[in-house]
Amino acid sequence: MKFDNQQNTMHIKPQIRILAIDDSPLIHEKVTLIGAYFRGGEQLDGILRSEIKKDGMDATDVFIRMINSSKFHAQIRVVLLDGVTYAGFNPVDINSLFKETGVPVISFMRSCPDLEKIKIALMNLPDAEKRWEIIQRAGKIYKIKQDKPVFFQFFGLDKESAVKIIQLTSTHSNIPEPLRVAHLIATGVVLGESTGKA
Amino acid sequence: MKFDNQQNTMHIKPQIRILAIDDSPLIHEKVTLIGAYFRGGEQLDGILRSEIKKDGMDATDVFIRMINSSKFHAQIRVVLLDGVTYAGFNPVDINSLFKETGVPVISFMRSCPDLEKIKIALMNLPDAEKRWEIIQRAGKIYKIKQDKPVFFQFFGLDKESAVKIIQLTSTHSNIPEPLRVAHLIATGVVLGESTGKA
Repeated sequence: MKFDNQQNTMHIKPQIRILAIDDSPLIHEKVTLIGAYFRGGEQLDGILRSEIKKDGMDATDVFIRMINSSKFHAQIRVVLLDGVTYAGFNPVDINSLFKETGVPVISFMRSCPDLEKIKIALMNLPDAEKRWEIIQRAGKIYKIKQDKPVFFQFFGLDKESAVKIIQLTSTHSNIPEPLRVAHLIATGVVLGESTGKA
Repeated sequence: MKFDNQQNTMHIKPQIRILAIDDSPLIHEKVTLIGAYFRGGEQLDGILRSEIKKDGMDATDVFIRMINSSKFHAQIRVVLLDGVTYAGFNPVDINSLFKETGVPVISFMRSCPDLEKIKIALMNLPDAEKRWEIIQRAGKIYKIKQDKPVFFQFFGLDKESAVKIIQLTSTHSNIPEPLRVAHLIATGVVLGESTGKA
C-alpha cells in the first residue's frame, strides 16, 4: 500500500475528546456540515457548523479549516468521519486532514462501500480521476466483526486504537455516538426535523 | 393565583421523553429555535428546528406547532423551556402550550429573573401589557435548593414531578442535559461554533 498509516499507539481515556462530522441532506447547492465535539461516547460539549458544495472539491480544505480554527482544536484527539465522501461526491483526503491538523482520522461506515459503483458514478463529474485518487488514499477498509458489523479506514493512528475508539463510543447503537448525534443535528437543522437512525 | 397548575402526579421513568427548546443568539430578525428530543438526561434522539421573530409575539404559536407537528409528539412527556421569553421578549404562554399540545411544561432558569426589570424593559416594545400578562401567567417561581440553586415554573404537572425531572436530567451540570444540548446546537448552528456553558 502506497499510503501507509502511521502507527502511533494511543492511550485512550473513556473521556477522549472526539470531533465527528456529518453532512445535511442534498437539498441545496450548499450542504451544511455539523461537527459534534464529544467526550467519549457520552457527552456533547460543542457544535461546529460549516458548509461545502454539493459534488464540489472543497471538503478537505473546509474540514481542515473547521478543525484548525476551532477553540476545541488542541483538545481533539481524533476526527470521526462518515465515510470519505460528503455532499454527494465531495471527497475528503484523510491523509491531508491528518497532516494539516495534527489530528488522527477515522472514517466510519455502516456498510462496506461498493468502490466499483462509486468509480462509475464519479465519471459523470468533473475531476473524476482526482476524486477517485483521493478516495483511494483513505487506504484499506477494515471490518469490525460483531453482531452488526461495521467498517472503517484510518490515518494517523494505529488500527487497534481505531477499533477501541469506535467500540468505546458506540454507546447507544452500532454507530459511534458523536456521529449519530452529528447526523441528527445535520438533518434536523436543514429539514426542520431529524431523520434516520436515532 | 388565577392560573392554578394542574396537579397530575406523574410516573417518571429514567428514560422519560423530553423536548427542550432553546433559541439562538439575536443576530438576525429571525431567531432560530432548536428542539432537542431526549431520553431522560442521557440520549439525544431527535432534533427540531423552527424560527420566531426577535421581540415578536409568535413564540407560543410556533412552539405549539413545533410540538404538534413533530413525529415525536405522542412520546413527549414534558417540554423543558429556558425561561418564558425567547428571542428577546417574545413570550411563551406555558398555559396555552400545555392546553394546545397536551404536554406538561417546565420553565427552567439558572437564576431568578428580575421581574421588575423585565416589566420596565417591556415598556419599549409594542403590546407591553400583553407580554407582561403572558409572563405572569407562568405563575410562581420555585427554587431548588442545592449547591448551585436553580429556579423553575411549571404547568400541567405537579411540583414534585417537575423537581424530579430537573434533577433526573441534570446529568452533566446543574442544567438539564436536554436544555444544555439545545443551547449548544442553537448557538453553534447560527454562529459556526457553540458558546456558553458546555
